[in-house]
Amino acid sequence: MTQSAKPPATRIARHTRDAIYVREANLVDELIGKLSFTEMMYFQLMGKRPSAAQTRILDAVLVTLMEHGLTPSVIAARVVYDSSPEAVQAAVAAGLLAVGSTFVGTMEGCARLIEEVLAAPEGETARAKSIAERHRAARTPLPGFGHPIHKPDDPRSPRLLSLAEQAGVPGQHIRALRTLAAQIDAVYGRHITINATGAIAALLGEIDIPQPVMRGIAAVSRAAGLVGHIREEQLDPAARHIWELVEEQVPYRPEPLE
Amino acid sequence: MTQSAKPPATRIARHTRDAIYVREANLVDELIGKLSFTEMMYFQLMGKRPSAAQTRILDAVLVTLMEHGLTPSVIAARVVYDSSPEAVQAAVAAGLLAVGSTFVGTMEGCARLIEEVLAAPEGETARAKSIAERHRAARTPLPGFGHPIHKPDDPRSPRLLSLAEQAGVPGQHIRALRTLAAQIDAVYGRHITINATGAIAALLGEIDIPQPVMRGIAAVSRAAGLVGHIREEQLDPAARHIWELVEEQVPYRPEPLE
Amino acid sequence: MTQSAKPPATRIARHTRDAIYVREANLVDELIGKLSFTEMMYFQLMGKRPSAAQTRILDAVLVTLMEHGLTPSVIAARVVYDSSPEAVQAAVAAGLLAVGSTFVGTMEGCARLIEEVLAAPEGETARAKSIAERHRAARTPLPGFGHPIHKPDDPRSPRLLSLAEQAGVPGQHIRALRTLAAQIDAVYGRHITINATGAIAALLGEIDIPQPVMRGIAAVSRAAGLVGHIREEQLDPAARHIWELVEEQVPYRPEPLE
Amino acid sequence: MTQSAKPPATRIARHTRDAIYVREANLVDELIGKLSFTEMMYFQLMGKRPSAAQTRILDAVLVTLMEHGLTPSVIAARVVYDSSPEAVQAAVAAGLLAVGSTFVGTMEGCARLIEEVLAAPEGETARAKSIAERHRAARTPLPGFGHPIHKPDDPRSPRLLSLAEQAGVPGQHIRALRTLAAQIDAVYGRHITINATGAIAALLGEIDIPQPVMRGIAAVSRAAGLVGHIREEQLDPAARHIWELVEEQVPYRPEPLE
Repeated sequence: MTQSAKPPATRIARHTRDAIYVREANLVDELIGKLSFTEMMYFQLMGKRPSAAQTRILDAVLVTLMEHGLTPSVIAARVVYDSSPEAVQAAVAAGLLAVGSTFVGTMEGCARLIEEVLAAPEGETARAKSIAERHRAARTPLPGFGHPIHKPDDPRSPRLLSLAEQAGVPGQHIRALRTLAAQIDAVYGRHITINATGAIAALLGEIDIPQPVMRGIAAVSRAAGLVGHIREEQLDPAARHIWELVEEQVPYRPEPLE
Repeated sequence: MTQSAKPPATRIARHTRDAIYVREANLVDELIGKLSFTEMMYFQLMGKRPSAAQTRILDAVLVTLMEHGLTPSVIAARVVYDSSPEAVQAAVAAGLLAVGSTFVGTMEGCARLIEEVLAAPEGETARAKSIAERHRAARTPLPGFGHPIHKPDDPRSPRLLSLAEQAGVPGQHIRALRTLAAQIDAVYGRHITINATGAIAALLGEIDIPQPVMRGIAAVSRAAGLVGHIREEQLDPAARHIWELVEEQVPYRPEPLE
Repeated sequence: MTQSAKPPATRIARHTRDAIYVREANLVDELIGKLSFTEMMYFQLMGKRPSAAQTRILDAVLVTLMEHGLTPSVIAARVVYDSSPEAVQAAVAAGLLAVGSTFVGTMEGCARLIEEVLAAPEGETARAKSIAERHRAARTPLPGFGHPIHKPDDPRSPRLLSLAEQAGVPGQHIRALRTLAAQIDAVYGRHITINATGAIAALLGEIDIPQPVMRGIAAVSRAAGLVGHIREEQLDPAARHIWELVEEQVPYRPEPLE
Repeated sequence: MTQSAKPPATRIARHTRDAIYVREANLVDELIGKLSFTEMMYFQLMGKRPSAAQTRILDAVLVTLMEHGLTPSVIAARVVYDSSPEAVQAAVAAGLLAVGSTFVGTMEGCARLIEEVLAAPEGETARAKSIAERHRAARTPLPGFGHPIHKPDDPRSPRLLSLAEQAGVPGQHIRALRTLAAQIDAVYGRHITINATGAIAALLGEIDIPQPVMRGIAAVSRAAGLVGHIREEQLDPAARHIWELVEEQVPYRPEPLE
């Protein structure tokens, strides 16, 4: 354990006998009943109240990410709920552990590409082209692009991008994403859709959410979706059936491990 | 593994090549940009759109529960973040694992007492009195009542209850909670505050959230609060200092375990 | 947050610049290379070194609980691993969250029944009979008894019980379990097997493991099993297939939720 | 969700009405009472029984990693336990979520360096030197080297390395680690200790544990340590005191976030 230079502090909240303050706002007098969840979330995270456009965009992102059916995240939450119904929080936590680099985490990779395009001294188009070429040469996936089901286009992306543009945003991140998309199509010689996580990376950039916590935003939305699935598991259980399916359909085969 | 009677299904979501449907609503056309996060959460969970009053109440609950400073939940999230910055979702999950029976879970206990009062054939006041007497005799804590810091009254509770009443609710759960509070004061011979989880139990009851998923609602709100603390940990780390503090202030004492 | 009476301490470990001590033993000089994992685990938990019989029994318990194929715990771990391969610890944690009250946790319920039998002033047989009658009347499951697959007998239980008896144990917990089993068969009028968690409850009782941490012992063993499945997932992935199976076999059915 | 090429299978376990098989061995007849936990863990993971030397080395690794006092992992487990005593598994899981890249995960980084040295066509010493130079130039930490407290040397490392050599191992990984250590000292112009995770990376390499699951091995050992701390928390609670400490010593300071 290392010695830290100066004792840290927190700037988020404090309380007294009579009051709770979040970012210096009195919870009871200034926040409850005054802010929506989305506004409060932005305020607690960013230390300032969101504009109407920022709220509208964050709501759109949160609505988009909440629910995608019986995903790995939902599967984990449901089997854990069935195993420990005494601890609903454990089922939510298990589901969130699946909000990792493979699926939702591509949002961060795309945000980094957008930042790279925006910061390029040689110009955005040139950098977008070289990013596309670099990924093509290395045969590495392009985070934020392509979708196994939604072809040729992910229907969520144009909706999210136009909603943000209509709400009124600075627009740089969206422009960089569009530039990148155009260069990708040109370099790969075929159309590769901007997927939902790509569009969301741009939208969160537009409302100043830092790239290192973007995955956290997804976790909040997904937590809400998981609660709905836990409720369905309480009313109409599927976890035992999932267990049976897996035992049946992933058979034992006694070949040597290597 | 038992045989289940009939194969289960899901009623929450489905997707095609071109569209995603949640509860039969088209995500892109009917939900994104049309619903706030709070409305979407209610819709996904309950299978119907919330009224304006229901949305207002759920927002108030979510705003109330988001942030309480450096709680056990936040401590867990921060030390896990510092240990595995590659996995923001793990820090959120660790923090949610602290949304258990001791603190937030009292909401469920209070909701059960409210339901008991509402269902009592002998009348609500009589049952409220006998609940108070039962807990007093057994010296068991009254879930939803009392607070170690906020004395004599938790400032959040009157705000939440009056907000719900003004928003317009059926009112039974709130009435039952107030009846219970009056009987508790009478039986114990002193004023014991309705705390925030008590008020929230009544509010969630008013908007039809089933008691077995109430803890999930708290988890969603707390997840948002944790993201704010993870961001603060990124900017102004406290986890190492917490580690030093604990090592220093919880000393080694080599007495026998038993 | 309440004021605690006196500042707590830890009796488990300390370190200096030159040495690490666990329970006052020097890790490097007295533990590494001298104790097996199982002996070290007992020593760290209980504050004293296990006897040869205690080690043999704890090893048998840990070996028994490690692996049961594609259980809910393994399913959760595998889908989380696939979603976040950057965080193997998250996959293990997700799997452990399924070591809850439904399956492994029955061990604790059985341990409580054994303790009830042992402490009964009216005699062990009389109490065992009344326990069986109580559960039969209430139609509640008997923790530690019965198995959906292993009928008429769980093959693990006689092996575990005879191994412990041969290793040499005080024998009270095993006797109480056998008394309970006999009364259950008599009261229910048919043979109900002692299952593995029932036998393990007795064995852990014989080696002084307190009932409130028994679930922890199971978690350690299961963690090892999960690592094996994570390795298999790395070599021969099944998680995507599980996802496909669940999407296909748990169909969308748009009936109303309620 | 992508289409997988061929349906996967599992090679780990299966069961019938009468028997459970792990890697084709009958659990009851061939494993319980025959294998220690450590042997079983190796067998389940690797698909073959360990030699006496491999068992001795794996035991030494597991004993070394189990316990390090009030670490972040323990802090997370203790506050989660206090918040949800109904779910011991959640406390273990929260603690494991701290077994991430920052601390234990350096083991994997060191294992990759060892593999790089072993595979270098230009010779081990030359590659070891260039690795040292590369890290020095980039000012990046050397995984497996250095320790904030144990100076000049981590006492665990020589013990682990000599134990493995005496047990009898192929010896390549240890040789590569020693070569790397010598070059590091030369390039940096001062002695930097091989720390415990560095020595363990070499030992696990010697017994054929693949680098991508090394973190899992650490998780198993740490899970056992966490159970001991959860038991101490049950007997002599520290979590509330930790909460008080943090609230007191990480003060609120209302400066702007940025």
